[in-house]
Amino acid sequence: MHSIEVLAKQARDAAVELAALPRKTKDAVLLDLAKRIETNAVAIAEANGRDVAAARDAGTGDAKLKRLALSDSAIRQMADGLRQIAELEDPVGAVTRQYVVPSGLQVRKVRCPLGVIMMIYEARPNVTVDAFALCFKSGNACILKGGREATRSNTLLAELAAEALKSQDAPPNAITLICSSDREEIKRLLTLEQYIDLVIPRGGAGLIRFVHEHARIPTVRHFHGVCHIFVDETADLERALEICATAKTSAPATCNAAECVLVHEAIAAEFTPALVRRLRADGVEVRGDPEVCRMAPQAVPAGADDWGREFLDLVLAVRVVSDIDTAIEHINTYGSSHTEVILSNEAARQREFTERVQSSCVLVNASTRFNDGFQLGLGAEIGISTSKIHAYGPMGLEELTTQRFVVHGDWQTR
Amino acid sequence: MHSIEVLAKQARDAAVELAALPRKTKDAVLLDLAKRIETNAVAIAEANGRDVAAARDAGTGDAKLKRLALSDSAIRQMADGLRQIAELEDPVGAVTRQYVVPSGLQVRKVRCPLGVIMMIYEARPNVTVDAFALCFKSGNACILKGGREATRSNTLLAELAAEALKSQDAPPNAITLICSSDREEIKRLLTLEQYIDLVIPRGGAGLIRFVHEHARIPTVRHFHGVCHIFVDETADLERALEICATAKTSAPATCNAAECVLVHEAIAAEFTPALVRRLRADGVEVRGDPEVCRMAPQAVPAGADDWGREFLDLVLAVRVVSDIDTAIEHINTYGSSHTEVILSNEAARQREFTERVQSSCVLVNASTRFNDGFQLGLGAEIGISTSKIHAYGPMGLEELTTQRFVVHGDWQTR
Repeated sequence: MHSIEVLAKQARDAAVELAALPRKTKDAVLLDLAKRIETNAVAIAEANGRDVAAARDAGTGDAKLKRLALSDSAIRQMADGLRQIAELEDPVGAVTRQYVVPSGLQVRKVRCPLGVIMMIYEARPNVTVDAFALCFKSGNACILKGGREATRSNTLLAELAAEALKSQDAPPNAITLICSSDREEIKRLLTLEQYIDLVIPRGGAGLIRFVHEHARIPTVRHFHGVCHIFVDETADLERALEICATAKTSAPATCNAAECVLVHEAIAAEFTPALVRRLRADGVEVRGDPEVCRMAPQAVPAGADDWGREFLDLVLAVRVVSDIDTAIEHINTYGSSHTEVILSNEAARQREFTERVQSSCVLVNASTRFNDGFQLGLGAEIGISTSKIHAYGPMGLEELTTQRFVVHGDWQTR
Repeated sequence: MHSIEVLAKQARDAAVELAALPRKTKDAVLLDLAKRIETNAVAIAEANGRDVAAARDAGTGDAKLKRLALSDSAIRQMADGLRQIAELEDPVGAVTRQYVVPSGLQVRKVRCPLGVIMMIYEARPNVTVDAFALCFKSGNACILKGGREATRSNTLLAELAAEALKSQDAPPNAITLICSSDREEIKRLLTLEQYIDLVIPRGGAGLIRFVHEHARIPTVRHFHGVCHIFVDETADLERALEICATAKTSAPATCNAAECVLVHEAIAAEFTPALVRRLRADGVEVRGDPEVCRMAPQAVPAGADDWGREFLDLVLAVRVVSDIDTAIEHINTYGSSHTEVILSNEAARQREFTERVQSSCVLVNASTRFNDGFQLGLGAEIGISTSKIHAYGPMGLEELTTQRFVVHGDWQTR
């Protein structure tokens, strides 16, 4: 058997044990790992420093270096995140439905782990710890393939996780780190459906395409967020201004940042110049349609490819629309099923928008930035699914499980 | 655009309308179709008769001819099935969870249709009507590719469905029947992820393999059922006998029929001869391990490939096992994640079995034959998923939907 298959099979064997692991053991592992991360903070920072230096020498861009680097507070946050996940309810064994059918059978739907989950992601070492913790708490084994720039950081973190597992007599193969960046090996992994139950790719278009093209295993995609805000004529304009500006500026490189604002034409003459002024003052480049550019000379003309674009930067597209229908059509054409917002004080408009916009998360009178597992009360998040199958929107612990039927009878035949 | 892509795009356009179709309209279509099927019963029987005659001439086997043929009562059952589905709750818009998070956002998880569902199945014309009805009631457009032997029957049934849709001003492209059996066309359909959200293959190993190999669209497999019954030493032997026999004989060709009985050795000397006698009396061929053959000379020796085999016929494998661990190991090795049963009067044994057996449905003291959407209270069933992702076990209307987040705020920023 090829060595990568051996690893996958070992993960499968671990998953069988993990499915029956009591919550107490799982939480003990998470808390133990939190402590190990704190105790080894200097070593982690050193390993990460070598990763960053090597990446810089190789000419890696600033945005990527920033994601790769683990500050002292980021290391503390990893430990805190583990303690938070330990406090969350264990989804495994939860009974989601229970009823008796006419034949007298007592039917229960019970949550169980998926089995083995493979995550493919970019050079963000904190994802290594997060993904392990969420998969482990939900009773799954994980196979982690992070960006190769983070190899030293990831290797140390995975070693600490394996030590934490051993310390509680939990199966050490609950975590498998793939350090090879050999594309053929990754392709082979993506076909091992007998061992791996789900693949979650998180990253840019190239990564998603690669996984999609080669996976025989079911995939839940965490793809980009092209998030829109529609400012209806009935919006509270002062608060709308605040939401539009901060939805872009509070974290411009995240997937739930706003990328495009659609302004109802009835309020465009009043709202648009104020919006553009505010955005410019906040350092945001505004790319407007001709109407916007006419009303607000600080805006620059948007190109055709600026609609539906994820800028991931201090850039925002703004368009004036004649009515809510045009807004909905724009969003259903250019959106990415991630996060869409209507700002409106009229219930009928709100309802029309939430019903007709196709997206995993639709918000009324709140920032796009609230589409996030923590903000929406899931307690944690492994990512935001823009696929409709299995999970749609932010995925927490429950979304890493499936449900099976457990039925008790009284010797019924049929 | 290729003609098959045009069909898929039309289905996608219909799906957008279907997502907002009120329950009243959907039920009216289903009831109208029920009436049309009854009014056109003679024409349906004639079209089906031509299908059966052509299939017989082409040398099709008896089992397949039987599935292809629509008796008068089968036609009546299609109409009754539609009326039953009309009575079921509409899953679309159902709020599955509702809570307020610390920021004050009101979070709801709301069911919405998947969009476009493609079904690939064998020559069973009743599936055409069932699949359309379930997809339609759950707000989805369907693309149906049935076995080519049923083309005349399927064409007429799809025409009646399109007429029923038109009569209520519902989008006629809610149903698309693919009559072509050109493999290249089907392969092309399986890559149209921009239009099709889910593919459900239902059928034999060859069909499943074909879909799996070529699909870029998410797939939920309804694969075979290799269902086991473990008769524990604490079982009520008389009732166990009844369950084992009827789980095989009441419908031997269905996926939830028992294929293998595992007998605890502590009761084997008493139970096995009685079981084999009963099965032989009911016309069942028993393939036993050496122990079974020694105890019951009416059994024939099982070959190595009889373990894990779906006989779909009056054949049953029987093995004596030394303990519950061996039974669980046998099932986790040879089972197909479909239906597994323990017959035992001891709670600890029941629990051990239900927790450690990996299957979409585990039953205690009841026949395997109860794993069925109707029997388990789903009201209807499009099939039984043996995949863990999205749905696991019998799939009813809810399993044809996904859930999205609809969030109401009070102008919060973040």
